[in-house]
Amino acid sequence: MKSTTIINAYAANQAGEPLEPFTYEVGKLLPNEVEIDVLYCGICHSDLSMIENEWGMSEYPLVGGHEIIGKIAGVGDNIQHLEIGTTVGLGWHSAYCGHCESCHTGDENLCAGAEGTIVARHGGFADKVRADAASVIVVPDGIDPKSAGPLLCGGITVFNPLVQFDVRSTDKVAVIGIGGLGHIALKFLNAWGCEVTAFTSSESKREEALELGAHRTLNSRDESEIESAAGSFDFILSTVNVKLDWNLYINTLKPKGRLHFVGATLEPLDIGAFPLIVGQRSVSGSPVGSPATIEKMFHFAKLHQIQPQVEMFPMDQINAAFDRLKSGDARYRIVLANP
Amino acid sequence: MKSTTIINAYAANQAGEPLEPFTYEVGKLLPNEVEIDVLYCGICHSDLSMIENEWGMSEYPLVGGHEIIGKIAGVGDNIQHLEIGTTVGLGWHSAYCGHCESCHTGDENLCAGAEGTIVARHGGFADKVRADAASVIVVPDGIDPKSAGPLLCGGITVFNPLVQFDVRSTDKVAVIGIGGLGHIALKFLNAWGCEVTAFTSSESKREEALELGAHRTLNSRDESEIESAAGSFDFILSTVNVKLDWNLYINTLKPKGRLHFVGATLEPLDIGAFPLIVGQRSVSGSPVGSPATIEKMFHFAKLHQIQPQVEMFPMDQINAAFDRLKSGDARYRIVLANP
Repeated sequence: MKSTTIINAYAANQAGEPLEPFTYEVGKLLPNEVEIDVLYCGICHSDLSMIENEWGMSEYPLVGGHEIIGKIAGVGDNIQHLEIGTTVGLGWHSAYCGHCESCHTGDENLCAGAEGTIVARHGGFADKVRADAASVIVVPDGIDPKSAGPLLCGGITVFNPLVQFDVRSTDKVAVIGIGGLGHIALKFLNAWGCEVTAFTSSESKREEALELGAHRTLNSRDESEIESAAGSFDFILSTVNVKLDWNLYINTLKPKGRLHFVGATLEPLDIGAFPLIVGQRSVSGSPVGSPATIEKMFHFAKLHQIQPQVEMFPMDQINAAFDRLKSGDARYRIVLANP
Repeated sequence: MKSTTIINAYAANQAGEPLEPFTYEVGKLLPNEVEIDVLYCGICHSDLSMIENEWGMSEYPLVGGHEIIGKIAGVGDNIQHLEIGTTVGLGWHSAYCGHCESCHTGDENLCAGAEGTIVARHGGFADKVRADAASVIVVPDGIDPKSAGPLLCGGITVFNPLVQFDVRSTDKVAVIGIGGLGHIALKFLNAWGCEVTAFTSSESKREEALELGAHRTLNSRDESEIESAAGSFDFILSTVNVKLDWNLYINTLKPKGRLHFVGATLEPLDIGAFPLIVGQRSVSGSPVGSPATIEKMFHFAKLHQIQPQVEMFPMDQINAAFDRLKSGDARYRIVLANP
């Protein structure tokens, strides 16, 4: 292993500007690190949020990209379980503290000291990326590497709550928002065995939602359609980042039902306590999943031949890819490919 | 069994007026009913809400009272498991539909067709009350009948979520509001094995909270005290019916923590989605418990010698008792005793 590596990336130099080629140099691998040759990298809406500093924590130059599929190109001195050439995935987290209660209980994704792949360090819109080996997941044979990148953030974000909250195969579930996250959720929930309803405001997506795995669709902006589903659902997964009338949706929950947010709407949820109390209902949220849950997801996706529906762009067309993301027309996730 | 019974009760004839003696006659017991000679009846804040028609569903004359301890005085033709003279309790529910999903899965308390003891029928501020036998719970020997009434609504309301949400003995828990419900919650949670924090705005209750079972207290209106508890709790039980800064409390939850409401604040909860998402936190609510959970509570209370702290009034002093309730000074629950 050479003592330094040159990494060729695409960076935002400030919010609102096109991404530019950006080269940076890194030193010798740390003992617990790996270096990955990036094959493919998905574009997540949070890459855009970070590039535009919507969350106020961006540092420039900023190299986004946290839905990474690549091959191990180098391993630190302590690493025994990963070999050069192995196909791996790297998602939102590039390291965990390893010693907090969350890390000790298999909830590394909730570690307060976890490092974000694109937060104050450089991500996967590049030919190479480095990460702590603990955050790197082997991609099993049988998973298509071209389309697998979006599983590392969008996919795990919708798969994780099914595991965390013990969604059962006999449950009646609904997904709000059929986009980058929601379309994968429909596939997972269909394979999970659930009766699946898709809430979408897009007329054109109603037919697509049925093909993706929904058993029926409802218009997410039609109050009477929502009301017709009163008391129907055990679990609703909201993937949207806009404000809806959440109390309407809570009334579509059965007793003990849960309205779960993976899309981060910034406005308060203004939910009434009374509908929660009378029906013993819950409202909750969750981020991406732990390494163990990502592994579970890969095996579930492989078994059920589930893959994100993606549009491919060459890495050097990254600005065109972001324009496509912003158009809202992508079906359903965009992946950049290195040559 | 006589074919009719005269019941001597105290009724509200309209909102805002003192309760008046009120006599009504009932016919032959239905096959699944029992008649109870009321020994003691607790006063719950929801009796006041119903008397004052705060929820818009009151029918007058209204006989409140749903924390009833009494002796079986008569059983319908179908009833085999209850005998004349057995001491029983009757709480918020006086009948369940018996055939919905909730009833079939032991969640009768969530049955949409359940009958409320004081909703469009007459409750326990009386010498007798009737109810469907399925909603009547035998009070085990070793439970003090004088103070047990408040277990049937206030007590089960705080005990039930510990069962429903699998609160663990190793959990760090907090109770917001140390009143009729909160003081029983402190006793239960202490016996449950938890590390217990009491949030109270009342300086005089801080010392009392420690005696009731809290290991420490925090001022529920002091932002800096609340902030000092950031990331502390697995489970917070809110028993208050006023609006607090719920996002402050959510930040005191550990990852996977839950803020649970049993006090019905009418204003929206205006909770941010982001703190729920990053910490996989939940917000939820629940009403009273099922018959099986009430039985569990009685046995737990007996084992740990837990009883509500009550102030006794003779039944014919019911208006003085309500004045005491309204003063907010009662320690902590008021019980009416028949002669």
